[in-house]
Amino acid sequence: MRILIINGPNLNLLGTREPEIYGRTTLPELQEIISVEAKRLGTEAEFFQSNLEGELVDAIQRGANFNGVILNPGAYSHYSLALRDAISSIKTPVVEVHLSNLFRREPERHESVTAGAAAGIISGFGPSGYLLALRYLVELKVTP
Amino acid sequence: MRILIINGPNLNLLGTREPEIYGRTTLPELQEIISVEAKRLGTEAEFFQSNLEGELVDAIQRGANFNGVILNPGAYSHYSLALRDAISSIKTPVVEVHLSNLFRREPERHESVTAGAAAGIISGFGPSGYLLALRYLVELKVTP
Amino acid sequence: MRILIINGPNLNLLGTREPEIYGRTTLPELQEIISVEAKRLGTEAEFFQSNLEGELVDAIQRGANFNGVILNPGAYSHYSLALRDAISSIKTPVVEVHLSNLFRREPERHESVTAGAAAGIISGFGPSGYLLALRYLVELKVTP
Amino acid sequence: MRILIINGPNLNLLGTREPEIYGRTTLPELQEIISVEAKRLGTEAEFFQSNLEGELVDAIQRGANFNGVILNPGAYSHYSLALRDAISSIKTPVVEVHLSNLFRREPERHESVTAGAAAGIISGFGPSGYLLALRYLVELKVTP
Amino acid sequence: MRILIINGPNLNLLGTREPEIYGRTTLPELQEIISVEAKRLGTEAEFFQSNLEGELVDAIQRGANFNGVILNPGAYSHYSLALRDAISSIKTPVVEVHLSNLFRREPERHESVTAGAAAGIISGFGPSGYLLALRYLVELKVTP
Amino acid sequence: MRILIINGPNLNLLGTREPEIYGRTTLPELQEIISVEAKRLGTEAEFFQSNLEGELVDAIQRGANFNGVILNPGAYSHYSLALRDAISSIKTPVVEVHLSNLFRREPERHESVTAGAAAGIISGFGPSGYLLALRYLVELKVTP
Amino acid sequence: MRILIINGPNLNLLGTREPEIYGRTTLPELQEIISVEAKRLGTEAEFFQSNLEGELVDAIQRGANFNGVILNPGAYSHYSLALRDAISSIKTPVVEVHLSNLFRREPERHESVTAGAAAGIISGFGPSGYLLALRYLVELKVTP
Amino acid sequence: MRILIINGPNLNLLGTREPEIYGRTTLPELQEIISVEAKRLGTEAEFFQSNLEGELVDAIQRGANFNGVILNPGAYSHYSLALRDAISSIKTPVVEVHLSNLFRREPERHESVTAGAAAGIISGFGPSGYLLALRYLVELKVTP
Amino acid sequence: MRILIINGPNLNLLGTREPEIYGRTTLPELQEIISVEAKRLGTEAEFFQSNLEGELVDAIQRGANFNGVILNPGAYSHYSLALRDAISSIKTPVVEVHLSNLFRREPERHESVTAGAAAGIISGFGPSGYLLALRYLVELKVTP
Amino acid sequence: MRILIINGPNLNLLGTREPEIYGRTTLPELQEIISVEAKRLGTEAEFFQSNLEGELVDAIQRGANFNGVILNPGAYSHYSLALRDAISSIKTPVVEVHLSNLFRREPERHESVTAGAAAGIISGFGPSGYLLALRYLVELKVTP
Amino acid sequence: MRILIINGPNLNLLGTREPEIYGRTTLPELQEIISVEAKRLGTEAEFFQSNLEGELVDAIQRGANFNGVILNPGAYSHYSLALRDAISSIKTPVVEVHLSNLFRREPERHESVTAGAAAGIISGFGPSGYLLALRYLVELKVTP
Amino acid sequence: MRILIINGPNLNLLGTREPEIYGRTTLPELQEIISVEAKRLGTEAEFFQSNLEGELVDAIQRGANFNGVILNPGAYSHYSLALRDAISSIKTPVVEVHLSNLFRREPERHESVTAGAAAGIISGFGPSGYLLALRYLVELKVTP
Repeated sequence: MRILIINGPNLNLLGTREPEIYGRTTLPELQEIISVEAKRLGTEAEFFQSNLEGELVDAIQRGANFNGVILNPGAYSHYSLALRDAISSIKTPVVEVHLSNLFRREPERHESVTAGAAAGIISGFGPSGYLLALRYLVELKVTP
Repeated sequence: MRILIINGPNLNLLGTREPEIYGRTTLPELQEIISVEAKRLGTEAEFFQSNLEGELVDAIQRGANFNGVILNPGAYSHYSLALRDAISSIKTPVVEVHLSNLFRREPERHESVTAGAAAGIISGFGPSGYLLALRYLVELKVTP
Repeated sequence: MRILIINGPNLNLLGTREPEIYGRTTLPELQEIISVEAKRLGTEAEFFQSNLEGELVDAIQRGANFNGVILNPGAYSHYSLALRDAISSIKTPVVEVHLSNLFRREPERHESVTAGAAAGIISGFGPSGYLLALRYLVELKVTP
Repeated sequence: MRILIINGPNLNLLGTREPEIYGRTTLPELQEIISVEAKRLGTEAEFFQSNLEGELVDAIQRGANFNGVILNPGAYSHYSLALRDAISSIKTPVVEVHLSNLFRREPERHESVTAGAAAGIISGFGPSGYLLALRYLVELKVTP
Repeated sequence: MRILIINGPNLNLLGTREPEIYGRTTLPELQEIISVEAKRLGTEAEFFQSNLEGELVDAIQRGANFNGVILNPGAYSHYSLALRDAISSIKTPVVEVHLSNLFRREPERHESVTAGAAAGIISGFGPSGYLLALRYLVELKVTP
Repeated sequence: MRILIINGPNLNLLGTREPEIYGRTTLPELQEIISVEAKRLGTEAEFFQSNLEGELVDAIQRGANFNGVILNPGAYSHYSLALRDAISSIKTPVVEVHLSNLFRREPERHESVTAGAAAGIISGFGPSGYLLALRYLVELKVTP
Repeated sequence: MRILIINGPNLNLLGTREPEIYGRTTLPELQEIISVEAKRLGTEAEFFQSNLEGELVDAIQRGANFNGVILNPGAYSHYSLALRDAISSIKTPVVEVHLSNLFRREPERHESVTAGAAAGIISGFGPSGYLLALRYLVELKVTP
Repeated sequence: MRILIINGPNLNLLGTREPEIYGRTTLPELQEIISVEAKRLGTEAEFFQSNLEGELVDAIQRGANFNGVILNPGAYSHYSLALRDAISSIKTPVVEVHLSNLFRREPERHESVTAGAAAGIISGFGPSGYLLALRYLVELKVTP
Repeated sequence: MRILIINGPNLNLLGTREPEIYGRTTLPELQEIISVEAKRLGTEAEFFQSNLEGELVDAIQRGANFNGVILNPGAYSHYSLALRDAISSIKTPVVEVHLSNLFRREPERHESVTAGAAAGIISGFGPSGYLLALRYLVELKVTP
Repeated sequence: MRILIINGPNLNLLGTREPEIYGRTTLPELQEIISVEAKRLGTEAEFFQSNLEGELVDAIQRGANFNGVILNPGAYSHYSLALRDAISSIKTPVVEVHLSNLFRREPERHESVTAGAAAGIISGFGPSGYLLALRYLVELKVTP
Repeated sequence: MRILIINGPNLNLLGTREPEIYGRTTLPELQEIISVEAKRLGTEAEFFQSNLEGELVDAIQRGANFNGVILNPGAYSHYSLALRDAISSIKTPVVEVHLSNLFRREPERHESVTAGAAAGIISGFGPSGYLLALRYLVELKVTP
Repeated sequence: MRILIINGPNLNLLGTREPEIYGRTTLPELQEIISVEAKRLGTEAEFFQSNLEGELVDAIQRGANFNGVILNPGAYSHYSLALRDAISSIKTPVVEVHLSNLFRREPERHESVTAGAAAGIISGFGPSGYLLALRYLVELKVTP
């Protein structure tokens, strides 16, 4: 079983970027935490990060070969119909994760155009959100 | 450790009400699943359901004596500033859960006025959403 | 055959409350008129009134055991997604009735979020609206 | 006593046009049903149908010589201020009828600019809506 | 002379709930302050608090037997057309009071749908707002 | 010199229709007043009235053969882009006249989509508005 | 008989300011044209121009002693509720005049908040608009 | 094989009306070009033009007996739900054509309420748009 | 102790201007009532009225030397960000007063852009509103 | 003669992605169909597909060296002002093509911000849309 | 060479007014800094400050005799179409300057209706913004 | 001292692209002008241009190692929350520059979602805008 974890724009700066909103865990640290938990759950986690909308579209499409996708689309969440279409174009369940609680942010960050195409959304739990998503997908056990 | 699970309007009909949206698990069955998992995690789950906005306000206020609150505000999520204020008025972390994915519903159901006062939101995972919330709160270990 | 007639907030004051809008028939008088007509049509009318949104949710859910529901949601009509969900959660046909013509009122009273879940809406005919609804339901003859 | 029943655009295709929304009764059949009921109630029904907004304005103005008007403005309901003004310009009570439930349709069909000038609106009961309107007008007994 | 003071949702938590917005006076303390001042002004103050919208509707209706009503609708102020209708349904003057200044809050808290039916609004003066309302009503001297 | 005066929907009922808004002068009386003034100014007035949007389009197009057009589009003023296009399609100056003051009416009657294609608008002066328009066009002296 | 002609902001630059919109007649020339016509009609024209919103409020208030007021509020037309209130506060008929056709301008210039308080509006006829307004007021013959 | 080409309001003035937007080809010339191409493609073109919304509804309904309909609804495109319903009421494929590019026009002309019921839309190619539509329908070969 | 009472546009006409909305007390009478009450409370009231937005800005700035400011911004309340900034620029508490109840007026008068910078708002109590504001400021006892 | 055909995000998945909306023809098949038709028309078709907004900007800029560009911007159509600017920055005619009918999709997909800079738009005809665009461009014969 | 520097409402309080937003430099200090720099650049700076919208209109009009105008319209920037028209009415280049970054402020302060008539806008650089504007105008060297 | 100058989409075509809006200076020429001025001011200018949103995110992140960033986000300015987040994620001051005056453009180009995260914005001064930004940053002297 393989899960693809995709992180979008500016998440490469995690830990140093606006830590009062996004926390102090860096991206490598986050990925390490997820890997350990994945192993514990008997699955394998693969990671991808990009600041480019189109590369994220590509990555989501590659998700068709995985048992599940965890996607943090970052700011693209609020306007990228292209990412939304990518999620709709594959059968693999996609779980959208946000570190911060969208509904605590400015009004224009409440709406997620991508989440409507995903299986569901987990928002506001910091790094734990990825682990919750992981457990959900492992228990769901979808065959690509 | 004690977690309060509050279910809002029409959730008493779970399992028979629009099952294509909300699934076929009844509320007693759902509560049983949560209880079992809670016990497994070494915590105690207490349940409350009401169709009355004000009784839900009361219940959330009682949440101040718990280690965590899981709240499915149902339709009140989209307009009840009274529930939002209740969440803001206690220090206990509140996790908002929705069985369906709000962003797949009609546009007027995308916005959650209550979620902005909660710790975070888990939406779209059916009964599993409650279990994910439970695990999060147990690992968070907040003292009331 | 049994029809449940549910009246919402402030309708207990019918006859004295803003009579230029809602007329001078009191709620007991209205219920008497409906009862007489129901008997004439060979059916039985049961009545419920409450100012509490959640008690109206409860009442609509009880409507599942009736052959039809006539609902005047009063002001809740314009914002209560909880009532809407309650109507959707039962199979009994629900007819929404308003004494006044919603489209003659202020713009924020034109929209009915509950009516979209009901079979239809009768608005602007005063007490006669309930009788029209009654006849419709009697002729429809739905088995609960 | 004479009642004028006016049907607006595309209602000449009733029965074949989108039957999942408008039903399978044709316009002649509908008019026959209304005529029979009118006779039973001791009144006379006259019919007019047109696809032209201005001819409907003319017809509503002719309604001044009737004891009541039943108007299904079809799609014009949502934007024809000209029809609204025509209804306002006569003293005869006008009942607006829609076969389908406006509030179940797309958002732009929820609003009726014409209904605000009418006595009231009956929407969602198929052909029965016309019969309910007929009974209302007969019991109202207005002299032109 | 008798004045009814109605407090809405979450005001039972006054003094502990978000004190940076609502201050540190508890509800019993507030009611004591009002009682003392009422006595000084030769009138009697009665109190009611509820988190339930419908119970507040009931309470406002009971206000018909008082010389004045002071209402803090809390969050219901912003969406409860049911409370607005209740205020309109009685002849007793109702003064709407808010502890905080609505126009300093988030935009969705600027509008008060209830205030338009009240005699007027006093907002932003903390507990003093109730005392100002009291004096106004006492000087107005309305017979129920 | 010839001026075409076009009156739109429901203006055939002038004098009897909502006289508190539109006054008590009938259309024939209005046309007589205009004719007399036209003669006095050495020009000839021709009249056309229709309730049909398309016939008004036809009439405006015929206006190309006149020295000026006075158009009261009635309610079509607020939504008829077809009338607007007709005005744009001829070179003859068109003066839009309204008996009532649009800005005193409901908000949806403030905007005139037709006036933006006309030379200008005169609104709120009752029958005098037509005479002012006439004088303007006579002094303008445009050759068709 | 005395008519007050009030011109608002930037109209002192008439003739040089954006002549493709406002024409090449200067304000003194315009006032001379109006004076001559006023004398011909047996009335007296007095003039006032200011760029200050409050001075225009003062001037309109002074209009209470005149038989009529012609007001070109310039840009204040679109947002000055203070000017609107000034017009409402006097009984003298006020005619609002605009040199350009508001409905040909940018959308934010279509609405006139002041015109709703005036008798009517004449817009788009250049300097002639003032003369049409003058004739209207002279024929109206209102006593201050 | 027969194709019906319907042109809406003001298209009878094609070639002289705002040629910088709509070009200099007249309607007879346009129809001749289409006829020639139709013959070349082995089909027959029939033409209808009207400025009346209702006559266009009638014409579209007659389209049920053709193999395809090409419709240029002109300005009605932006508000005529009646035309939209007419398109929905027949099974014949309807191609909406506009001479100009709607998205280059004013914002209120971007939306086409009729196009959503049509097979598709071709906009911005001048007379060529009709020929492209013709080819599409001929290759589609639908039996009425 | 000194309190500055500032009245905005058209309040100089108080008593004669739309008395059904603003009452029949004139501005000198109102100021006399306030002076008497101020003396009774052991403070001194100074008055300023202007129709000019900028002079009101000046006056509010002078308020820095007073113990409190009572401001009725009149119509400027709804759009004057300049007045709002003036209120924010001083430390003296400013109480906004309106004679009428803003929430009973047209929708565009519900919002007060100035009130958000003030301590609070008192609206709908006629001249009494000023007295309530006075008492509040006297009890607050702020040193300039 | 050379035509550049640019396909945007997710069109690489054509044929497998939501086939009920986009059909079952794959991108290579579509490109083969276009190539054959291009050859038949005596022109040469070159293809480019990318999921990256910026690479599409680059591609459109390269279009300056072609005789025409056919662009399917996919979801970018609805928000990419960058693509719009790219289209505006070249002189080559660009035809925007969409497989599905934008006006049948969700409201947020009706608007195309890119189409306003293009020559025109063809939407709703599946793969045939590309062929219609090709014919148009070939007949237009523009020199780069 | 002469440059006119115009400061709008509340800028006379610079240095003491909300220093966390506008800084601690007073207006005289700011004007001194500008004068020194102007002298260094071989030009002369003249200053004007007013809280009155109309006096600012006057001042901008006087700017016609200068080589450049630097305008900080303060809060008027967001609603004063009168100032915008004044800027449009002169040929002298006007540079709009704001001390704070409009786009960091509340949403209603993002839009500048005046800036659209100015040459450009410099916002967010504190007092330095005036110096940047000065250098731009000196290098532009426009003859009045 | 090092300054990074980042240019966004379509700015590689500067000089040939819509020169009536963006001027005739090419990007290499612009960069040369900036380099010369930078040298004169004793700093070093480095340049980056890309049409890809994500590459611009990368570039802004690299700005953390510079003393200042000048960013012209082009069209991304109006919707790229990803760029906004990138600016927020670094401590280096970022000055947003636009060649044209955003407030003279279409309404959807007035808002800059990126500018709110920047130090400030300079818009409308053509190439000079970059030089003004450069001087500002040099005088600011921030250490990376």
